Amino acid sequence: MGENVIIVGAGLVGCLASLAFAKRGYDVTVFDYRLDPRDSSTEDRNLRSINLAISARGISALEYVDREIAERVLRDVIPMKGRMIHNLQGEQESQIYGLFGECINSIDRAVLNNFLLDELDNAGISVKFGHKLVKVKFGNDKQTCLFSTGEDKVDVVECDFVIGCDGAYSTTRYQMQRAMRMDYAQEYIDSCYIELYIPKAKKFNKQFNGHFSIAPDHLHIWPRHNYMLIALANADGSFTSTFFGPWSLVESLVEDEEKTRRFLLESFPDAMALMGIDEAVRKFISYPKGALMCVECNPYHVDGGKAIILGDAAHSMVPFYGQGMNCGFEDVRVLMQLLDKYRGNRAAAFQRYSETRHEDLVAIIKLAKNNYKEMSHDVTSTSFLVKKQLDRALGRLLRDKWLPLYTMVSFRADVPYHRAVEISEKHRRILNRLMLLFVSTGAIMTALGLARLSRWFRRWM
Amino acid sequence: MGENVIIVGAGLVGCLASLAFAKRGYDVTVFDYRLDPRDSSTEDRNLRSINLAISARGISALEYVDREIAERVLRDVIPMKGRMIHNLQGEQESQIYGLFGECINSIDRAVLNNFLLDELDNAGISVKFGHKLVKVKFGNDKQTCLFSTGEDKVDVVECDFVIGCDGAYSTTRYQMQRAMRMDYAQEYIDSCYIELYIPKAKKFNKQFNGHFSIAPDHLHIWPRHNYMLIALANADGSFTSTFFGPWSLVESLVEDEEKTRRFLLESFPDAMALMGIDEAVRKFISYPKGALMCVECNPYHVDGGKAIILGDAAHSMVPFYGQGMNCGFEDVRVLMQLLDKYRGNRAAAFQRYSETRHEDLVAIIKLAKNNYKEMSHDVTSTSFLVKKQLDRALGRLLRDKWLPLYTMVSFRADVPYHRAVEISEKHRRILNRLMLLFVSTGAIMTALGLARLSRWFRRWM
Repeated sequence: MGENVIIVGAGLVGCLASLAFAKRGYDVTVFDYRLDPRDSSTEDRNLRSINLAISARGISALEYVDREIAERVLRDVIPMKGRMIHNLQGEQESQIYGLFGECINSIDRAVLNNFLLDELDNAGISVKFGHKLVKVKFGNDKQTCLFSTGEDKVDVVECDFVIGCDGAYSTTRYQMQRAMRMDYAQEYIDSCYIELYIPKAKKFNKQFNGHFSIAPDHLHIWPRHNYMLIALANADGSFTSTFFGPWSLVESLVEDEEKTRRFLLESFPDAMALMGIDEAVRKFISYPKGALMCVECNPYHVDGGKAIILGDAAHSMVPFYGQGMNCGFEDVRVLMQLLDKYRGNRAAAFQRYSETRHEDLVAIIKLAKNNYKEMSHDVTSTSFLVKKQLDRALGRLLRDKWLPLYTMVSFRADVPYHRAVEISEKHRRILNRLMLLFVSTGAIMTALGLARLSRWFRRWM
Repeated sequence: MGENVIIVGAGLVGCLASLAFAKRGYDVTVFDYRLDPRDSSTEDRNLRSINLAISARGISALEYVDREIAERVLRDVIPMKGRMIHNLQGEQESQIYGLFGECINSIDRAVLNNFLLDELDNAGISVKFGHKLVKVKFGNDKQTCLFSTGEDKVDVVECDFVIGCDGAYSTTRYQMQRAMRMDYAQEYIDSCYIELYIPKAKKFNKQFNGHFSIAPDHLHIWPRHNYMLIALANADGSFTSTFFGPWSLVESLVEDEEKTRRFLLESFPDAMALMGIDEAVRKFISYPKGALMCVECNPYHVDGGKAIILGDAAHSMVPFYGQGMNCGFEDVRVLMQLLDKYRGNRAAAFQRYSETRHEDLVAIIKLAKNNYKEMSHDVTSTSFLVKKQLDRALGRLLRDKWLPLYTMVSFRADVPYHRAVEISEKHRRILNRLMLLFVSTGAIMTALGLARLSRWFRRWM
């Protein structure tokens, strides 16, 4: 084909999309406003990373694009088989994710990004860093992108079509909005996040087979209702930890070092012992505070196959289902499959993508938002846990006929997000009826028992 | 005070805001990307005007800012006391808006805008045309606006604060979004609009006291369920008319002149007789097609009193309640009253504005959206008309104790939009119960009547 495509953004989704289009013979050029993150002289680590958890959808998309790359990525991940809930007393309780040992996989965002950038180099794909997209002009035949490359310097590049993978604050999306009728909504969640850190343990820990001070095969959560701390393991034994809490709480804390210290010690005593309270306080106060924004839009493409947005540019979600990157990778797979189906007819494939992908994206954005409550609060509630056990028991018993929601979202790339939600809604109604049945059966049995007991009493008294 | 303020946009709301701030002693400069519309050499009439209907909220805000200006505006309006429904046979039916003869008032957008611009000149307010806002930098103390004034030319202006009145596609709003966490949603309605025109009648019409070919004191509607035509009178006897219909319908029509002609003749025979079918077809096909977009956001200001958005920039709505400009004018009044309340403390006033204004703006945006169905469809339904008559009867009987929704929105600037919606919801429930009571009473009376009838029969047969 040899049509040339500009991919805006060399983040995770941009890299995967580049590899996928290059494999199909398109002439791919990638532009990113950052400098090359692999260049050790660029210290642009933004101190706002949240470790990623790659699961079935992400893996399946990687494999779809390149089986070998997928294998190499999975070589360095740390499987997590469940959540580890830390209570105020420092006691830990494991809640397993899968029914049959399935895991999600912790990986450092920067490590994965750099790995994929190397793969772009290997594939001979040109990546131009330091190019900030300023404007896109959509023509009848060719699209023109204008990049700023520094004070007063611009680079004007022409292409057949544009793929916007430039994140939640996407310029591609904004430029598309100026050329078409795109419904769009952004909503900020009242929670900020702060990156913290648990250093690797001094001694090798035989139990964990590494310098880990807590179990690396769990996603650690310190749920405290309206705020929480989480931690995901890194390969070297350290953990990348993230605090989530309302802006007003954080703003009132960071004004006062002593208050911050007290808050952290009282809320997360065991975590502070691992982090070192002084380091934790310093980071909590001085590190940048991240905002959490949901983005929804529709459609995702400019008619005529001129442009399309993928990943966070099209569907930014809060990180509480661990699906942001997985969903973005799935975008690439879905688009590529449609391009195959329509034999390279971009106009048709892009339009069909918008028509079919929207309900799935809306579903996962909502699931991710609802999961904040589950992670920070529900995991400590008895009725939640009882229902969850029942759900799991049915899942183990009925196998493919009863898939828990978490399983469908995280371990079954073959179930579209919106179907997962529909199925789980049906299950929820059945579970509620079962619970009611159990409770009333229990009540009847108790009543019968009491009746027998009273007869027995009357006879003998 | 003498603080200087930049007002972005010299449209209707921008002009009123400028007058209001100038009156309070602020140093006001207005910037607009257009050339001066009063300059006869600028032919930038965009052929997408919808005539405006100014009603209580707009008038009250005008009066609040300047009683004399309000009087002069009202001198040239054409009062409309109701809707005139045109059916397919060309029969007309009047539906009166107010209970006691209240009117909304037709006015040409360009006439009103030019009048207000003249008032700005009279007040010595500097208006810089041909200045397109490109960037706003929010500082600790001063805000810096960068305007493009033509190919490669820029104008950098500093001020204490910025008022964005730059419409639905506001650049001020976009610049604010880059500096703060603003929830934002834009949604396109599946309707496009096309401006059409009924020329003034050749003969003076005694009945209408002017060269009008249909009643000037009504807003004319040709409701055809999923599309419609409307017309509002101009002072010279002509009518500005607007067609609204789904994009797919319009796109399929404009491809084929003959099809368009047939469609217009069959849908609006009496209107075509007034417009001239050839002219109508020409305009329908060649005039620009306008999109209808709803915009909601929150908050409306940048902390510290640095900036605020008013009018369509903050709340673009569809035109079906005739409240877009009225609501924008009311924004100005509400903001000014808060500035008075907080004695010029902008930070406090802007914040309070966001906190209190949001529920009203959300309410009117939704009302306007729902009114499309009422205008294009419900006005032809019997049960709608019966309920409306009952509503009006109660309104006339109970006066201030029972205000119909349309009355509260259009004729009562003292009832905030969100209260109007709450009250009308309560009324709706009462009306439904009354209807039920009437229907069941009717049934019982009929049953009793039948019973008596049958007794009477038995006795005499």
